[in-house]
Order: sequence, then C-alpha cells, then structure tokens
Amino acid sequence: MSAYELSKPIAVVLASGGMDSCVVTALAVDRGYEPAMLHVNYGQPTEAHELASFHRLADHYAVRRRLVADVRYLAAIGGSSLTDPALPIETPAEHVEGAVPHTYVPFRNANLLAIAASWAEVLRARRIMIGVVEEDASGYPDCRKAFIDVMNEAVRLGTRPETDVAIDAPLVAMSKADIVRLGARLKAPFELTWSCYRRDDVPCGRCMSCELRARAFAAAGVPDPLVPPSQ
Amino acid sequence: MSAYELSKPIAVVLASGGMDSCVVTALAVDRGYEPAMLHVNYGQPTEAHELASFHRLADHYAVRRRLVADVRYLAAIGGSSLTDPALPIETPAEHVEGAVPHTYVPFRNANLLAIAASWAEVLRARRIMIGVVEEDASGYPDCRKAFIDVMNEAVRLGTRPETDVAIDAPLVAMSKADIVRLGARLKAPFELTWSCYRRDDVPCGRCMSCELRARAFAAAGVPDPLVPPSQ
Repeated sequence: MSAYELSKPIAVVLASGGMDSCVVTALAVDRGYEPAMLHVNYGQPTEAHELASFHRLADHYAVRRRLVADVRYLAAIGGSSLTDPALPIETPAEHVEGAVPHTYVPFRNANLLAIAASWAEVLRARRIMIGVVEEDASGYPDCRKAFIDVMNEAVRLGTRPETDVAIDAPLVAMSKADIVRLGARLKAPFELTWSCYRRDDVPCGRCMSCELRARAFAAAGVPDPLVPPSQ
Repeated sequence: MSAYELSKPIAVVLASGGMDSCVVTALAVDRGYEPAMLHVNYGQPTEAHELASFHRLADHYAVRRRLVADVRYLAAIGGSSLTDPALPIETPAEHVEGAVPHTYVPFRNANLLAIAASWAEVLRARRIMIGVVEEDASGYPDCRKAFIDVMNEAVRLGTRPETDVAIDAPLVAMSKADIVRLGARLKAPFELTWSCYRRDDVPCGRCMSCELRARAFAAAGVPDPLVPPSQ
C-alpha cells in the first residue's frame, strides 16, 4: 500500500447489500475516501443473502475494514414485517397511500447511524455515508433529509470535541432511476447486490423492494443484471 | 391488575443497574408511569453484576416489560477502557482535567437512546427516561443536555407521525449528592445497585465510578448500603 493510500480519509459506509448502498460505496471510492463498510443484521428474512452481497461488494472494492453488527434486539422489539414473521410483507398494491409501510423497522436508521458514528469516532473517519432515499422511501420517517440533518447535529454534539465526522446521505434527494444512472456511470457492481425483502434465492419480483428496483432500472434504461433478459 | 394500572402511560427507562438509573426508575414510578426497563450489554467488565442489579431493580418495582439488548458491537468497535481490556480504567487521580475519560464509550448514549426509541415506538410509550448527569459526567460528550435535546428532536423527526414520545433526562442538571437525596426521599433501593467499573464482587472503592458514588453519599449525608459501616 502506498503512502498516498494510507493518507486517504475514511468514510464509514452503511451497506445493506442493496442497490442504493452499492452506489453509495461507489461514490465513496469515487470521492477519494477509503470506505470502512458497516453491515447490520437485525433479523430480516433475507439476511443471509444481504450479508453475502455486503462481503462481495466489499471484496469488489478491496475494503479491509468491515464491521457486521448484530442488532437483533430490533427483532425482539418487533413492530415490523421485516423482523416479525407474523406480519405480512406488503406488496405495492396492498400499501395504503400515505401510510408508513409494514416494513418500517421502528427508528432503524437512528440505530444504524449511532453504530456508524461510534465506529467513525474510533476510526477518526471524516464521513458517514448512508444510502437513504427520501422520495421512494414510501413514508419511512427515518429516511427524510430533516432526520438526517438532526442526526448530524447529534453526532456533532455527542462525540469528542476533536471528532470531525459528518453524515452524508448523497442519494436522499435523488430519484431511484437517477441512482441507477449514477451507479452505471460509476461502474457500481449491481450484479453483486440484493434487494428482495422476501426471498434469498431469486428475487420474488413482487415485494415493494423488488418493484421499486424494477421500475428504477426500467426508467433509467439500464438492464438489471439480476433479472434474466428473457423476463 | 386493575383498569387503573392498565391505563398508566409507559416510560421506557434505561437502567444500567447503577445508582442514577435506580433513582430514575423510582422517579418514573413516582410520576405515575409504568416503567418498561431496558438494559444494554456492551461487553463492560462488570456486566454480570450490572445485569443482576437491573433485574433486582425491576423485581423491586414489579416491572413486567424488560428488554436486555446485546450491543457488543460496541466492544468490537473499541476505543474505551470499558470495552477494551488493553486500556486501563483510570482513577480520578489519573484523570487529566478537561479530557474525555478513557471510560467514555464512543457515542454510547446515542446507541442506547436509539434502542429505547425503537422500543418506545412499538410500546406506544410516552417517555424515554435516562439517568445521564452532566455535572459529574466528567466530560462525556453524550451526557450533556444539548445532546439530549437534539436526540429528542431526532426521535420526533425519525419516528411515525402518531408516535408521541419524549426523552426525559431528569438528573441531567443535578449534583450527585442531590440525586442521592432524591433517591432517599423516593425510597429508591440503593442496596440493589452496582456502580463499580472494575470489580463485580465488592466495589473496588478506587475507580472513578466508586469515588463519585462515595462522594455523593457523603455529601448527601446518607449511608451507602453497599459499604459496610465500619469503613
């Protein structure tokens, strides 16, 4: 490793293994950061596939610092169809307009950002990057820019005076189609990602996450490498 | 259980098992809340004793809802003498005035408050109560009122619109001696608590947590039930 490599500032990148975190990782590299990748396991049904995608993505970018945090207390807390098998994972057709979807994990992103900030403080990282998207977050309150802004202030006030790290949510105001276009331009390895909420072998094609992904690639005019061309 | 009991509003109470959280639990009960008690295990050396104190405290107040969250990722992240055996736990004499102590766990209280808020949202709790103390927090940045205030705003913005929960840090501006006096008035069971950072059999009497506790009881003129009268 060259001295130049050693001197790169660190960005803690929150990576679920989905398409948004893939583009955020590509952006971190493009902007000259050394990514330190953080994945959380909160008992979601497709965790095995998401974790594999996380490591493949980290391998792709030769990321040395990886942290997998076990936050299964979120499953114990419940309240979401992603962590409670008794609650159905709704399709877009089943979703009530304006309502917070069943897949919302209560205050999840605050938990994620708190872990990221703890790690960033120890690593003396300069950025925490998170791939939240306000537009098609479909009403998740913890994906809004206003929430990210106040968490940024919490990090500033709640860490050591010499800690100098800011939360960056570069996709927050983007459309999903523009995220696909950006990823394609940055050569983000979409083929390594996983988005489906319901299955971990082949995408179900019906859950909200699959449908948002399909619409995004279609609108961007980019073929989704996870979907066979015949479909 | 009477209908009156069932109608009590819930307060999620963060309880380490120490003297401050003991008083906060007593305050929650005194103010008419049904406490839902949350303890976190972050790999601190005295966790076994702290967890036992937590359950004894919950038993004392007949608390049904208890959550023990495993946040040992904070130990993996490191950066604190409470989670990294290689770092010494300093005594007050060793502490450098104005510096953040080695026992500071990076951004710990944000992690704790995020878990508490997730649980509070599911329980429809009205309060999250935390026993942080600004004065003798000895420079922990995440024990300051300004930090608590901004986390309150994060909870407001990052949860469902119908979620109506506020963070209450009732001890934040109090002296440790006044906390002992308040606890004595509320008949808080100090004999069930644990404060020592270093030992889990008898208090070491030398670590910062032991010394702050001893000074507090002395200043309040209240005997510490954990210390034999001959000492």
